Amino acid sequence: MSLTDGTVPTDVALNTDLYELTMAQGFWEEGMASNRACFTVFFRENPFHGGYAVACGTGQIGEMVENFRFTEDSIAYLRTLQAPGGGPMFKEGFLDYLAGFEPDLDIWAVREGDLVFPREPLVRVEGPIIACQLIETALLNLVNFQTLIATKAARVVQAAEGHVVSDFGLRRAQGPDGGLTVARASYIGGCASTSNVLAGKVYGIPVFGTHAHSWVMAFPTQLEAFRAFAKSSPKNCVLLLDTYDVAQGVEDAIVVAKEMEAAGERLSAVRIDSGDLAKLSKMARRRFDEEGLGYVKISASNDLDEYTIQSLFAQGAPIDSFGVGTKLATADPQPSLGGVYKLSAYRAEDDEAWTPTMKVSEMAYKRTIPGVQRLVRYRDVEGVPVGDVILDDAHVMPEKAGHAVDVLDPVTEYDFSRAVPEDVLVSMVRNGRDTGEGGTIAEARDRCRTALRYLDPATRRFLNPQFYPVGLEPGLADLRQRLAREERERGGNPAA
Amino acid sequence: MSLTDGTVPTDVALNTDLYELTMAQGFWEEGMASNRACFTVFFRENPFHGGYAVACGTGQIGEMVENFRFTEDSIAYLRTLQAPGGGPMFKEGFLDYLAGFEPDLDIWAVREGDLVFPREPLVRVEGPIIACQLIETALLNLVNFQTLIATKAARVVQAAEGHVVSDFGLRRAQGPDGGLTVARASYIGGCASTSNVLAGKVYGIPVFGTHAHSWVMAFPTQLEAFRAFAKSSPKNCVLLLDTYDVAQGVEDAIVVAKEMEAAGERLSAVRIDSGDLAKLSKMARRRFDEEGLGYVKISASNDLDEYTIQSLFAQGAPIDSFGVGTKLATADPQPSLGGVYKLSAYRAEDDEAWTPTMKVSEMAYKRTIPGVQRLVRYRDVEGVPVGDVILDDAHVMPEKAGHAVDVLDPVTEYDFSRAVPEDVLVSMVRNGRDTGEGGTIAEARDRCRTALRYLDPATRRFLNPQFYPVGLEPGLADLRQRLAREERERGGNPAA
Repeated sequence: MSLTDGTVPTDVALNTDLYELTMAQGFWEEGMASNRACFTVFFRENPFHGGYAVACGTGQIGEMVENFRFTEDSIAYLRTLQAPGGGPMFKEGFLDYLAGFEPDLDIWAVREGDLVFPREPLVRVEGPIIACQLIETALLNLVNFQTLIATKAARVVQAAEGHVVSDFGLRRAQGPDGGLTVARASYIGGCASTSNVLAGKVYGIPVFGTHAHSWVMAFPTQLEAFRAFAKSSPKNCVLLLDTYDVAQGVEDAIVVAKEMEAAGERLSAVRIDSGDLAKLSKMARRRFDEEGLGYVKISASNDLDEYTIQSLFAQGAPIDSFGVGTKLATADPQPSLGGVYKLSAYRAEDDEAWTPTMKVSEMAYKRTIPGVQRLVRYRDVEGVPVGDVILDDAHVMPEKAGHAVDVLDPVTEYDFSRAVPEDVLVSMVRNGRDTGEGGTIAEARDRCRTALRYLDPATRRFLNPQFYPVGLEPGLADLRQRLAREERERGGNPAA
Repeated sequence: MSLTDGTVPTDVALNTDLYELTMAQGFWEEGMASNRACFTVFFRENPFHGGYAVACGTGQIGEMVENFRFTEDSIAYLRTLQAPGGGPMFKEGFLDYLAGFEPDLDIWAVREGDLVFPREPLVRVEGPIIACQLIETALLNLVNFQTLIATKAARVVQAAEGHVVSDFGLRRAQGPDGGLTVARASYIGGCASTSNVLAGKVYGIPVFGTHAHSWVMAFPTQLEAFRAFAKSSPKNCVLLLDTYDVAQGVEDAIVVAKEMEAAGERLSAVRIDSGDLAKLSKMARRRFDEEGLGYVKISASNDLDEYTIQSLFAQGAPIDSFGVGTKLATADPQPSLGGVYKLSAYRAEDDEAWTPTMKVSEMAYKRTIPGVQRLVRYRDVEGVPVGDVILDDAHVMPEKAGHAVDVLDPVTEYDFSRAVPEDVLVSMVRNGRDTGEGGTIAEARDRCRTALRYLDPATRRFLNPQFYPVGLEPGLADLRQRLAREERERGGNPAA
């Protein structure tokens, strides 16, 4: 059982930070296991200093929750753990409880491919506090990284201006499953294909790839190597030009392209993987065109990201497709999304109403938003989103078009009175069961493409993007201020 | 079958870039499948602008190779793939070949925990070219990320100056298995424990963790929350101080610590997860000491890395242990190690001698080192490594102490004549079978600690570290220059 024998043990319930289990034991001992909690997943800043993020991983929450069970094996392992101060870390009664545990939760989330912005609820989890707590790590692990990668992919695809982008990141990913995760999220973000064959099998993503430098080096001459590849893969022939000298690579490719024509085949493309891609692609394009090989496409790779692709186009590089690897798979230069999971409302099992809670940090920007949160997105008559409003389920708010809507924090001058509201959060889990609303990754990919097409270009741009307005409904804004004030006055728990 | 149902399909043989398979088909068709190749894995720069890297993932190569088989299921998937130009991508004869494929390889590698430097062979793979090619992606996926994370962990542990560091990175990792990989490599790099329970179960790594802010928020007051936690986990009680105000957190912890004393227990530690950790830890230390609670340890977390930890100690922060998450799990700010896999020698099945090969790039620094490479590390009489030499297996070199050794590229002034040489590469796979030389992760962790203790502090430091000397044996340096010259003169393949 390991990373390398084909059976990575992703036992979902043990895929957790230890403190979820020590807290769960505490809730169980205190008789609080069934008290109700509402947790909210959100992040504080858009990744890459950008104007948006693409929700991802949320479509798998239902499956994760349905499979969240403690196996006999897992219980046996937990039984072996010793507390640092001596004695077993977990009590037998608690282990019995875990053995029968099923997370009876209700979960809403932003659909995969939809846009999401800082401070907004990406996921909302409601249910027994012990269940909310136990799934925390697995849930964050699922949505943090995929949202980051889908966003990175969307940016790279945006820079490629309609040209094809393929994920080449597997060799730099965090283990086999890291690569699988990257391929899935990149596809949702807009990549056309992946080099990762397993991702093709598991998710049905188109796979792409041809040959490496080593192919060329294994033959006495480059020309022989190109000929052999054309013979072996005539319908899928992309020749790599930069094993030695790219100019010679182009000439050898021209020879083979003409031989392929004579045999009724066509050289599909060439790829350049080092050197000055702008200069070399222009040279290759010119030579292919001079030789009547205008149909041969030019593909580029080598440490690409959204900025290098933009720069290549700014230099007029005639590149038709891009293989993007390392910087996509690792979300360089910001390899993490700081998505957090915060308690935002709480109630005893028998209480009717929620008590909103809030973490008042030493740092004001870390102050959370209280309440059982909904997220409403307003669109103008063209369908362009003009602003989002976070509101508490308990507060009434006019949502129909034709009503004036006050949005606080920040105050936006947009006249919402003609905007059409829609709920962004979708029910993913109901009573611990997958609702099936997650949909397919192809649907998620379409959703992302549509969402980005409608997004204001000022928000979409990379350099100093305009912030998309996200406000709190006035009642919720008041509540938040009141809780912070109470906290300051008492030095205690603002929710108590 | 997915990331979330507990059965991540890491079918090792499909965990590959598509081009490995299209090339393999080409080699098979050309009758070259059994030609012999020697590939070398190396990286060009130390991660994090540091002076060293810690080899990791190499101990799992044997298991990976033994499990590298194409299942019926995988073959069925490959059969469905269509070439972009039409028709099946793979021929039936080739799929039959894959169904019976076993990688009959010999592999040497730097042992886990040993140090490795730029341009050195981290792994050397010898065998039929088709087998060498097919395992490329899985091998890079295995060693690239783990070497990066083990190096990051070693740096963080170095900064912690003997204080305990625990991996807290799961929630920001690349999926469940990404987290598992991080925990393994971090432990080898020197972390004492992980929050990741699954990593504890799978690898036997000590697990650590107590409670989150949400625990405190679920109680009417912080004091009640602390009391309840102390009651539930008296032998493993670390109280989190910063849910509201840290000063109040300290006072509440003092009350609970004294109640625990009265009950014959001891508060183990407190943790601070936000705010000015230097200032707050001093305040907490002072208050605990004033109250006779000198034994209560102080733990810190919140976006830590080697630099923040150094800075905390420079400010005199009395912190006893660190939880390091995001920046460890994602190797921030350099989330990838650019490890590559290059053909360095080649021969027909019946040839006696290897023909060295070399990739002559447009960029001189991308020029590879040819040959069947060995790596020899020289140590002075104290055991301090003074320089490494890369040599070709075909070249004779005086290796015993007492012989003068010329080391080229760079020229080093150290007198190697009294240094003791040792081979760094160890046989991990023999005839496709795991040699068992990978050893345990505990051994790897010890090896890393010892290696870093002996390393010159000038090479170990973070700011402008002195480069550790790595040279080419003179015969290999000559060969490399000759191949490059021949290439320039002919514009062809320097190995032909």
